[in-house]
Amino acid sequence: MLDYPALRAVAAVAHTGSFEKAAKMLNVTPSAISQRIKNLEDRLGVVLVERATPCVATEKGEWLCRHIEHVAMLEGELFKNLPALAEAGSAAPQVTLHIATNADSLGTWFMQAISTYARNSGHLLNAAVDDQDHTAEWLRRGRVLAAVTSLEKPVQGCRRTPLGALRYRATASPEFVTRHFAHGVTARTIAAAPALTFNQKDRLQSQWIRQELGEDVAFPTHWLPSTQSFVDASLAGMGWGLNPELLVKDHLKAGRLVEILPARPLDVPLYWQVSRLAADQLSSLSQAVIETARQQLVQPVQTAKSER
Amino acid sequence: MLDYPALRAVAAVAHTGSFEKAAKMLNVTPSAISQRIKNLEDRLGVVLVERATPCVATEKGEWLCRHIEHVAMLEGELFKNLPALAEAGSAAPQVTLHIATNADSLGTWFMQAISTYARNSGHLLNAAVDDQDHTAEWLRRGRVLAAVTSLEKPVQGCRRTPLGALRYRATASPEFVTRHFAHGVTARTIAAAPALTFNQKDRLQSQWIRQELGEDVAFPTHWLPSTQSFVDASLAGMGWGLNPELLVKDHLKAGRLVEILPARPLDVPLYWQVSRLAADQLSSLSQAVIETARQQLVQPVQTAKSER
Repeated sequence: MLDYPALRAVAAVAHTGSFEKAAKMLNVTPSAISQRIKNLEDRLGVVLVERATPCVATEKGEWLCRHIEHVAMLEGELFKNLPALAEAGSAAPQVTLHIATNADSLGTWFMQAISTYARNSGHLLNAAVDDQDHTAEWLRRGRVLAAVTSLEKPVQGCRRTPLGALRYRATASPEFVTRHFAHGVTARTIAAAPALTFNQKDRLQSQWIRQELGEDVAFPTHWLPSTQSFVDASLAGMGWGLNPELLVKDHLKAGRLVEILPARPLDVPLYWQVSRLAADQLSSLSQAVIETARQQLVQPVQTAKSER
Repeated sequence: MLDYPALRAVAAVAHTGSFEKAAKMLNVTPSAISQRIKNLEDRLGVVLVERATPCVATEKGEWLCRHIEHVAMLEGELFKNLPALAEAGSAAPQVTLHIATNADSLGTWFMQAISTYARNSGHLLNAAVDDQDHTAEWLRRGRVLAAVTSLEKPVQGCRRTPLGALRYRATASPEFVTRHFAHGVTARTIAAAPALTFNQKDRLQSQWIRQELGEDVAFPTHWLPSTQSFVDASLAGMGWGLNPELLVKDHLKAGRLVEILPARPLDVPLYWQVSRLAADQLSSLSQAVIETARQQLVQPVQTAKSER
């Protein structure tokens, strides 16, 4: 049997960032917290918590945190059927669900889905943000229980549901277009006009160039790892870049932004993948996500269906 | 003498994400790029580029990228005085300035400063985002040349200028306040109301609790690593959290958000720290940053002055 008081101590320190606050949270002394973690670390021969300000879980420590949260979720289900159990023991720690999403989904449609779910379920959410091509990796490693991903293929042990596509528009300020694309969008002008790139994982600008020009072109770029800053930088004439249509619709209508090639969007299909182990407990989250996506994302003409 | 063609190849691969695009950018064959990097790696006995899709620089490779960018900036200065030199050799690669900022500055006042600078200088910017207590670390490690930081003490080898304070308001939706703080904001109600936390490095909510309640209180929290999503989650009634006043002013005025304790802001003083090695070349960036900050941040009553 795992040493659950020790696991809970690790999770509480990772969550609060200090031994003192973890102690307060679990109603024990800080030295009890320290002792439990130390014993577990000695037994496993690995460091679970990095003693710093704030304290953070190591990679191994994070695995334990995920496990204890998953167990807490299962306990929550059990207590619904056996309420006497909850009253007998100490209060179950509040459940935190770990999910991953791409930044542009979080910045557009995803918040509506998760805020509804959080209010109704009373669960806490921890949203990890990564590129849509990489959130599946978080799922594969067991660091999250569900993810918005561009990966069509089901991750092993997961259920996958198509969500529709997030539509991007290649936009810039009108003044930027006059300055850099007066002679059209060609390999030559693209190679000279500063673009915007989210981070090293962001290939959207390259994909759009390939889609429109039929070849790869190296281009100069600013780097701005924030969905909203991308829009702000576009408005300020700093560069051109692929912005989610949901965020720039009004700017396009008002003429503050223009498409550098009119009506040439890039669609990125997204999928909701949920660990099978948690799929039943997460069914109301999945429902909220899928419903919101159906309203906000671009849907294919045929009816999308849930698949395993 | 360093092997500059090899260094440039590493930087080009890190920048474009592939050997093919780097080759196109430098007008050589992909195998030349591959050969140069391989030779340098063999000589140094370390991997500089992780061969993946996309290719990314390793930590050691990043050091070389920073160096070559710094050299390119110095070359740019030299070419201004000796234009014949630029024409004789191949074109100098475009300069990318690496700077670090906290997410909330990027999401509020910082874009105005850097977009003006980028347009006027023609330089590219790479903005790294980290917590305001941690951007100084990026500077210390030489990964950026300048940073917005909460660190008052000058980083070794850097010049520091106070920028004023970013003011935060502890906000939530009116409905959330009714639900969770009908009996006031006390240790007991804070311990039960879901908060919002940016990431493990974000201590703003804890700081505000200590400032207002005079003690540390562990509290349940959602985790959302995005400035704009923090505001969206507050509006959606998901939790309470510290939002930059610049982003929630209009929501507060319209009553869509309220302060959970009226007129109890938290001010986070920010500083601009610039590597001395680059301070002269970055003087126009520093000027743009300082001017924008003086307009947008909360200024102390006495005149702030630049210090060394």
